[in-house]
Amino acid sequence: MAGNTFGHLFKLTTFGESHGKAIGGVLDGCPAGLELDFEAVQTDLDRRKPGQSAIVTQRKEPDTVEFYSGIFEGKTTGTPIGFAIHNTNQKSNDYSHIRDSYRPSHADYVYDQKYGFRDYRGGGRSSARETASRVVGGAIAKQFLQGIEINAFVSQVGALQLEKAYDELDFSLIESNPVRCPDPEMAQKMEDYIKKIKKEGDTVGGVITCVAKNVPIGLGEPVFDKLHADLGKAMLSINAVKGFEYGSGFEGVKMKGSAHNDQFNTDGTTKTNHSGGIQGGVSNGMDIYFNVAFKPVATVIQPYETIDKEGNKVMTQGKGRHDPCVVPRAVPIVEAMTALVLADFMLLGRGSKL
Amino acid sequence: MAGNTFGHLFKLTTFGESHGKAIGGVLDGCPAGLELDFEAVQTDLDRRKPGQSAIVTQRKEPDTVEFYSGIFEGKTTGTPIGFAIHNTNQKSNDYSHIRDSYRPSHADYVYDQKYGFRDYRGGGRSSARETASRVVGGAIAKQFLQGIEINAFVSQVGALQLEKAYDELDFSLIESNPVRCPDPEMAQKMEDYIKKIKKEGDTVGGVITCVAKNVPIGLGEPVFDKLHADLGKAMLSINAVKGFEYGSGFEGVKMKGSAHNDQFNTDGTTKTNHSGGIQGGVSNGMDIYFNVAFKPVATVIQPYETIDKEGNKVMTQGKGRHDPCVVPRAVPIVEAMTALVLADFMLLGRGSKL
Amino acid sequence: MAGNTFGHLFKLTTFGESHGKAIGGVLDGCPAGLELDFEAVQTDLDRRKPGQSAIVTQRKEPDTVEFYSGIFEGKTTGTPIGFAIHNTNQKSNDYSHIRDSYRPSHADYVYDQKYGFRDYRGGGRSSARETASRVVGGAIAKQFLQGIEINAFVSQVGALQLEKAYDELDFSLIESNPVRCPDPEMAQKMEDYIKKIKKEGDTVGGVITCVAKNVPIGLGEPVFDKLHADLGKAMLSINAVKGFEYGSGFEGVKMKGSAHNDQFNTDGTTKTNHSGGIQGGVSNGMDIYFNVAFKPVATVIQPYETIDKEGNKVMTQGKGRHDPCVVPRAVPIVEAMTALVLADFMLLGRGSKL
Amino acid sequence: MAGNTFGHLFKLTTFGESHGKAIGGVLDGCPAGLELDFEAVQTDLDRRKPGQSAIVTQRKEPDTVEFYSGIFEGKTTGTPIGFAIHNTNQKSNDYSHIRDSYRPSHADYVYDQKYGFRDYRGGGRSSARETASRVVGGAIAKQFLQGIEINAFVSQVGALQLEKAYDELDFSLIESNPVRCPDPEMAQKMEDYIKKIKKEGDTVGGVITCVAKNVPIGLGEPVFDKLHADLGKAMLSINAVKGFEYGSGFEGVKMKGSAHNDQFNTDGTTKTNHSGGIQGGVSNGMDIYFNVAFKPVATVIQPYETIDKEGNKVMTQGKGRHDPCVVPRAVPIVEAMTALVLADFMLLGRGSKL
Repeated sequence: MAGNTFGHLFKLTTFGESHGKAIGGVLDGCPAGLELDFEAVQTDLDRRKPGQSAIVTQRKEPDTVEFYSGIFEGKTTGTPIGFAIHNTNQKSNDYSHIRDSYRPSHADYVYDQKYGFRDYRGGGRSSARETASRVVGGAIAKQFLQGIEINAFVSQVGALQLEKAYDELDFSLIESNPVRCPDPEMAQKMEDYIKKIKKEGDTVGGVITCVAKNVPIGLGEPVFDKLHADLGKAMLSINAVKGFEYGSGFEGVKMKGSAHNDQFNTDGTTKTNHSGGIQGGVSNGMDIYFNVAFKPVATVIQPYETIDKEGNKVMTQGKGRHDPCVVPRAVPIVEAMTALVLADFMLLGRGSKL
Repeated sequence: MAGNTFGHLFKLTTFGESHGKAIGGVLDGCPAGLELDFEAVQTDLDRRKPGQSAIVTQRKEPDTVEFYSGIFEGKTTGTPIGFAIHNTNQKSNDYSHIRDSYRPSHADYVYDQKYGFRDYRGGGRSSARETASRVVGGAIAKQFLQGIEINAFVSQVGALQLEKAYDELDFSLIESNPVRCPDPEMAQKMEDYIKKIKKEGDTVGGVITCVAKNVPIGLGEPVFDKLHADLGKAMLSINAVKGFEYGSGFEGVKMKGSAHNDQFNTDGTTKTNHSGGIQGGVSNGMDIYFNVAFKPVATVIQPYETIDKEGNKVMTQGKGRHDPCVVPRAVPIVEAMTALVLADFMLLGRGSKL
Repeated sequence: MAGNTFGHLFKLTTFGESHGKAIGGVLDGCPAGLELDFEAVQTDLDRRKPGQSAIVTQRKEPDTVEFYSGIFEGKTTGTPIGFAIHNTNQKSNDYSHIRDSYRPSHADYVYDQKYGFRDYRGGGRSSARETASRVVGGAIAKQFLQGIEINAFVSQVGALQLEKAYDELDFSLIESNPVRCPDPEMAQKMEDYIKKIKKEGDTVGGVITCVAKNVPIGLGEPVFDKLHADLGKAMLSINAVKGFEYGSGFEGVKMKGSAHNDQFNTDGTTKTNHSGGIQGGVSNGMDIYFNVAFKPVATVIQPYETIDKEGNKVMTQGKGRHDPCVVPRAVPIVEAMTALVLADFMLLGRGSKL
Repeated sequence: MAGNTFGHLFKLTTFGESHGKAIGGVLDGCPAGLELDFEAVQTDLDRRKPGQSAIVTQRKEPDTVEFYSGIFEGKTTGTPIGFAIHNTNQKSNDYSHIRDSYRPSHADYVYDQKYGFRDYRGGGRSSARETASRVVGGAIAKQFLQGIEINAFVSQVGALQLEKAYDELDFSLIESNPVRCPDPEMAQKMEDYIKKIKKEGDTVGGVITCVAKNVPIGLGEPVFDKLHADLGKAMLSINAVKGFEYGSGFEGVKMKGSAHNDQFNTDGTTKTNHSGGIQGGVSNGMDIYFNVAFKPVATVIQPYETIDKEGNKVMTQGKGRHDPCVVPRAVPIVEAMTALVLADFMLLGRGSKL
């Protein structure tokens, strides 16, 4: 159980290393009869891909997905959807310097300990390149979730934090700037800050907020597979994520119950939404919203001391083309994982009643 | 798939409603030959049980666990461990007032929508009473994890926040006060605050911090089943939890990568531990630490307006014996879920290498 | 993963040893709103229980099931159904003779090798007593499968084989004799033969045939989880089963394809049914029928030589009250497992199409 | 849960239709550090591939596997092994005649019913072409199972049945003839018979026997995941399989327990092996052997009447290049599935004891 499958019924299995022949996956459990919009899939891949703007890594990877199965005459057949993205830009020599030493706060050291050795080319399986396969699966899940709107955006970069609540924002502005922050003024500040950090050869973290609207009531399974528990796992499984909170989150602990409780309107909606659209682990029809914290990227373009396999100190330096801040490119990944979780619970929910 | 099983190999399935005959579970996958300390199991149940101090609910539930199988001559046999905790204090009449109306920020409304009807006696399956079964499973997991130390404690109640880092605290003081905060001075403040809130008939949230020491290197599966992803899911599956962060968490996003990276010592340990003991989803041998946010309990002992099944407005009032703040009793639950996750990855890890 | 759970969505987990305090289980995933007929559950348990006739073991076990959860006001709530059957007739001393030696063709030896030691009282977890929990789960599954008729019966005892095809038999006669063979004449022969074998202190095997009528088209998942593959696994998981065949089975290999193919009628039914109601792993609406082979019970009431834990030869003798032939009591178990498989695929099938 | 994954820990997921771009799979859970013999993988693929002899289908498919991930410097890395076999010989026009009508005893009809439509090109997902992916996974599993010998062979074609017990046969002769029967005389008879059947445009069934030697004691999980239950499911999931029996199988039901029981030698081995190497669902170190029944291939090259989508009678005729008897090519598939099951239980077994 190497943990490369996500979902109970709408199941995505991924494979592939950053510098292998191809990455890809198998999406199993997508119901038959879904007419696929292949351009929408590619659009999400393009939102994740390197080289899209001046504030992301300048690697060139076209990230074109090739579908092998599960689709006939443009529609899903109910059989597994196999796909691959061939790696075309494998500059393995960029990584020769990390073959024998361990980069701090990367998976190099623990992989060697766990598996006895590792594919040292660019992070191998621990590379965020794997998430391209998730974006493919998520883009199909989005299409299955007709009527549900999922929007993620950058709400914090370093200490620059969006003050406005999500419902004061215009989501149509998310894609209008390279940061993917729907507040143009703040987006500009964030962009400037990321450029400054990049010039220093350093990196910085950020927060992505995600909102799902029009989610039907009843998604989520009580007890262990609560909707927010699976959402949390989905987000925490994305590279560099350090935290997850939904609804009132960490701030909500300071409130009193009398103020925190969401009073009902007569139609079953609530006057406030501290619950974040989920009560007892089950969606209640209100907007679902949550925050995802990303740490600063570990690869800095500065000299640093580390150790080699034998435990000797060595001086080294980050090379290659890396992201100074991961959140702009992580926006479609957060959306993809959200869609996968919701699609999964849509199918699970079909078994709730007689 | 109603989601009542947790774990891949070390698997806990629970059953039971707050006011049914019994709650209980089946722990499947615990290796054979583990000599069980039954008193330790009961001790953890007692740490969770109602009525243990003045700042928790005054319900009386002895919470005595009865083991049915999987144990012979005091040792686990490798077969499933079935157990039950019989409910002895089922004051169902306390809950008659919620049969026809929906309590705000409870699961009442969504259960009715999802399942068509619900066991309205005291929350039924959505009651935190279910977590007693988790404590039983977790207490056995702790014993399986010989050498690993798991300590959870209350680090925040309302706005009262422990300033000290976890490694400045004396864990032997955790059980010395009813709040389960290892800083006696802060513990007293928290206790006073909870009493004040209780007197108001109100409730307040809090944060539990958990630390696992001596975790071997290599636990966690890359990609979807990262160690912190499963820990996050485990925590988020506990009633009232709204957020999870590990290592540097949400604060870490403000740091630069050059400062956030944990530099290696020559023995593979790191000089700092912003990673929270986990790199690339796999334990690195350093302390694992994380925070879990709990919302204020939804049941307040105040009159409030809500709706009935037909959508009519009704006035009602919280009754019964409820916790003004859930975190003191949730400490053993957080430890139990942590132990279940670690035990699960210990077994999974046995398949990593030839 | 000790393998004590069956099913993907309609999931039964069982626990318990033959001579522990209780056996039982958790049925998770049964949809909400099913009105339960508790007498029907007990009727199936009574068909399985010892002491019901002169040709089965004379042990006395009332086998009364106690439900703990998941049912409210007589209906399933969608939450897990926990239940237990308390062991009342634990004559552990009957088994003291097998503590230190291994009974041939029992699990004693392999359990000691696999787990390091075993609960030696009466087979422990390897006892067919575990199947009582399956009968409980299966009885609920039957009720979920309203309209589908599942009938199992004994079609062979030793060399005595029913010649008639299943559709020439009157299933209402199955319960009219202690063998559970719907042909009264053959039933009498079988009964006489079992009595003779019992007098010899010996045992004999048999075959159970099972027929499921009115199964909707479309149950079963292509490739690995074919309907007959899961049915086969379900049957082979029953104690003492050595073989499974469906439709034309082993005899069908001798046929030519032109004769074996089931030609269509214009309504989609087929003129013959060599397929056994399943094509490509998916039900086609025709009767599903299959045979299950049971070996002769291993416990014979005769002296025999075996070995002890140290590998020394020892003489011993089967004691206690055992079945001379297991098939009459296994009929409700075969039905229960069939119902569990069909219920599981009913739920899985809800995800096939948009 | 469309059922395209096999195994609990050593997990194979497959994808692909007979006439899509590619078939392939992901093998997840193979431990790190296994040095792979790629020629051995291809050898097994070649034993399965069409066109290898005069008695199998004359389609030309090179079936060259391309590995995408999970392997580095010739060894498994512990990450998922993604692979694809590109389809090069897609004569889709061969199948235009089945677009609108249903072939008897194929999956055409039930797929249309279950999914609303189907990929009608050559069976799509229901084609046995899928099993090439299993052979790849199984070939890797074989290499993981160092020391265990798995040999499958044809023991029956139509009514021509090998009389000798498996331990009287010389397995080195299996590959010496196109039938894969280790008795040269019988092999010749079978070959002649298959040729005769082929000339008639007809097909015939057969039986494959499989023997696994040197299996360690302790594989298999009691209760639902018995070793023979998972073996049975694995075999029954192969296209055209109608029955499975192990050890004494269906014949054993006629024996008395006193004769059927396998008496122990002092070293724990048994004097006879009616148990087929498995007791109580767990391997006992003796040879594991079982039989698998395959029905006659449904595609006959003869005119026949069937129905179209609207239920009208239509005359049609099987075309293309099909196998007159499937068993010679199914031998490596049976071996592959056996290897997958054993590898899975090897990993599961690592969790049995402390």
